[in-house]
Amino acid sequence: MRALRSLLLLIALCAATVVLVISVGGQSGRPVELIVTGGTVVTMNRGGLVIPDGAVAIDGGVIMAVGPADEVARQFSAKERIDVRGQVVLPGLINTHTHAPMVLFRGLADDFTLEEWLTKYIFPAEARTVSPEFVRIGTQLAALEMIESGTTTFADMYYFEDDIAEATKKSGLRAVLGQSVIKFPVKDAKTPEEALTRAEAFITKWQRDPTITPAVAPHAPTTVEPGTLKAARALANKYSVPLLIHLAETRDEVKAVQAARGATPTQYLESLGLWEGRSLAAHAVWLDDADMKILARRKVGVAHNPESNMKLASGIAAVPKWIAQGMLAGLGTDGAASNNDLDMFEAMRFAALLHKVGTMNPQAMPAQQALELATRRGAEALGLGDQIGSLEAGKQADLITVAMDGARQTPMFSPASHLVYVTRGDDVRTTIVAGKVLMRDRQVLTMDRQAVLNEARQMADQVRAALQAPDGKGK
Amino acid sequence: MRALRSLLLLIALCAATVVLVISVGGQSGRPVELIVTGGTVVTMNRGGLVIPDGAVAIDGGVIMAVGPADEVARQFSAKERIDVRGQVVLPGLINTHTHAPMVLFRGLADDFTLEEWLTKYIFPAEARTVSPEFVRIGTQLAALEMIESGTTTFADMYYFEDDIAEATKKSGLRAVLGQSVIKFPVKDAKTPEEALTRAEAFITKWQRDPTITPAVAPHAPTTVEPGTLKAARALANKYSVPLLIHLAETRDEVKAVQAARGATPTQYLESLGLWEGRSLAAHAVWLDDADMKILARRKVGVAHNPESNMKLASGIAAVPKWIAQGMLAGLGTDGAASNNDLDMFEAMRFAALLHKVGTMNPQAMPAQQALELATRRGAEALGLGDQIGSLEAGKQADLITVAMDGARQTPMFSPASHLVYVTRGDDVRTTIVAGKVLMRDRQVLTMDRQAVLNEARQMADQVRAALQAPDGKGK
Repeated sequence: MRALRSLLLLIALCAATVVLVISVGGQSGRPVELIVTGGTVVTMNRGGLVIPDGAVAIDGGVIMAVGPADEVARQFSAKERIDVRGQVVLPGLINTHTHAPMVLFRGLADDFTLEEWLTKYIFPAEARTVSPEFVRIGTQLAALEMIESGTTTFADMYYFEDDIAEATKKSGLRAVLGQSVIKFPVKDAKTPEEALTRAEAFITKWQRDPTITPAVAPHAPTTVEPGTLKAARALANKYSVPLLIHLAETRDEVKAVQAARGATPTQYLESLGLWEGRSLAAHAVWLDDADMKILARRKVGVAHNPESNMKLASGIAAVPKWIAQGMLAGLGTDGAASNNDLDMFEAMRFAALLHKVGTMNPQAMPAQQALELATRRGAEALGLGDQIGSLEAGKQADLITVAMDGARQTPMFSPASHLVYVTRGDDVRTTIVAGKVLMRDRQVLTMDRQAVLNEARQMADQVRAALQAPDGKGK
Repeated sequence: MRALRSLLLLIALCAATVVLVISVGGQSGRPVELIVTGGTVVTMNRGGLVIPDGAVAIDGGVIMAVGPADEVARQFSAKERIDVRGQVVLPGLINTHTHAPMVLFRGLADDFTLEEWLTKYIFPAEARTVSPEFVRIGTQLAALEMIESGTTTFADMYYFEDDIAEATKKSGLRAVLGQSVIKFPVKDAKTPEEALTRAEAFITKWQRDPTITPAVAPHAPTTVEPGTLKAARALANKYSVPLLIHLAETRDEVKAVQAARGATPTQYLESLGLWEGRSLAAHAVWLDDADMKILARRKVGVAHNPESNMKLASGIAAVPKWIAQGMLAGLGTDGAASNNDLDMFEAMRFAALLHKVGTMNPQAMPAQQALELATRRGAEALGLGDQIGSLEAGKQADLITVAMDGARQTPMFSPASHLVYVTRGDDVRTTIVAGKVLMRDRQVLTMDRQAVLNEARQMADQVRAALQAPDGKGK
């Protein structure tokens, strides 16, 4: 499946190159569906190429060319043009870890200890409200927020993942979606065996979808038994899909695994063969050097969630060291219940500032590196590095345009600095996934914004009622 | 001067109370200039009062009443009403430390060591470009950004402070403005003596202004000689105005003062009598317990700047401990060159998350406390606690209204949580200072927005040119 995709991509890339060569000097260029033109194109390719007054030509969902606007105009004629003069054009942002429907719990309970937060609020709320309807409404809201803030791809771990996939598909976003497997009875599975069966059905249903990558998501080393972990790995490998898992989020988790298994979480999972296949681990706040070597060698994508780690006081992940050791690091927001939003610009800003103070080195994570985490490196962490993460001919046309004329963005000396240190998701003007315009001039085109917000508010009333009910355990 | 202000305030407060009592039951209420009505009023008073569907009546620049909308409507009739249904009404935010004109250097040079940043970029840029014209244009831009993001009062330390005061006055913002005194020759003074003379002229010119509080700002314990520090204190006390100073920002500063003076910066300044009078110290990242006791006893306002401290890798200030020890803590952005914006919502969010991970305690700085730092506590840190910082009858009418209907703010369980964890300056809809509407429906009324941005961009071209000139020392 992936080999086929890579081959098709290579063919597209060659075709694009040939077209570029052939069409040079031609009077009217080759017709393409869409040209985004006139902005400063921050390609995020390996050379860090930035093209002032650049353009991106798009056809069949794929980037046909990236270059100076006048050159692209000579080579291609577009059915549709989006003029983004004064804006920055950037690859769509990649959120490598979230729980989309948890937007419905945002701000429900903050500033508690993790234990109190989970047992008094989140678990009771989930036990009473999570349903296919709940995840559909929550995913809609999350998708709206992501489209509005420039995220084009997200990785998710939650329940009723098939319903999440349906809602995601309608929104137009690209996603890696992991059906949760956990040892406790949950709303979509009474046992881990049932969850694995559900996961297999989910994977077989979606495995050929061009924008949805189905996955299996054993919750964490402490909440899934070793046999189930092995079965999840086998399932993922059977269909060549990723396995998603939480890893070493807190010091307590590391202590618990050390006590029960005599090894760090990473090394315990290595002993089970869990990393032998495409994997994405979230958090990894508490790793030792041997853990990092394993994750680098096994090419495990690792999602860093600075805001969640700060808010829950989990700790500061050694991300600059991860990168130095060759780990595939990406950036995420985590669920909105512990962030409390899905804005990847905020995630970049928090990452860039946190690691400077965390290492007492103001050069620890330059703006450009934070941008890489949210784009190219994030794509690589998801195993999608050949398809997304940079603006290059042959890749999927996932891109955003960002306004740069606000008072807080004036004056402008460096696009990378402004993107990381002063830009918000609200500055995004256009969001495009696989060549499809999901938002234009801040109008979301794939969803009825007001209906999504109304449904979310009604569902929140149910959450409130559930927590206030006699057995809701809430205050 | 302050005693007179307090007396007037007390009279106004009594009058307001009497009016409230008298007008109850009246058919048409007492006429006032403005009523802001229909929002959720987060008063930030000591009791933490929140009034759903509340209103604020304003007359003569002063808050006449705060209460349920229907009650206020019975008691007052307004010349002008601003309906803010669905929004939150909050005291204007108070930025206790910035260098307003440095917005013109934002993003000019990031991700350098402090030494390299200062010597290669900021100092050469300042030496070549800082002028009355520069600070006027920079202050305009900063004021525009602050009005647009809900800051109503700021404390400033820079050069040509009289020109900063003129620009601030025109913008309508309230400010505590400190004329810098430093031992090196700078653009507005060849010697510290000249700077002190300039500071005295500045203070006498502005001391009776209702919204501008002039101040003297000796730069830092390492950059001002002891004699000058004493003279600055004497000058401040002569006119009963504040003294502003940087304090214990980096470990290196503490080491240098220890080596040169045999004491911590705080204790060295205590030995000079520097804290004997109204004082505001910025940063205080590196304090020991004795330092904290001194600052608490001397009632020194202390400005915490989480983003700058993170970006420059200065360290994590012990703010929860400050508060526990009774220090007058406020929140600031620092100059935009080290932040890179002046958004106090971001400052709250960074403070709330930083101290959780910094202490490994998710309850270290609850949302409500971050809000207090940006409002009531900030006012107290500036010595303006009797005038601003909360929405209470008798206080100055400095308030903002904040939209709460964005996707990332949906659903809404708690205003305090949303204000700190998901709100941005861009969500502010109305900004009012001393009863004057500076921004309404995001239209800034006191400035020509486009002209301000254009002037700033032209000045940035000069900064760029100065750094590229043969002796500019920039790359």
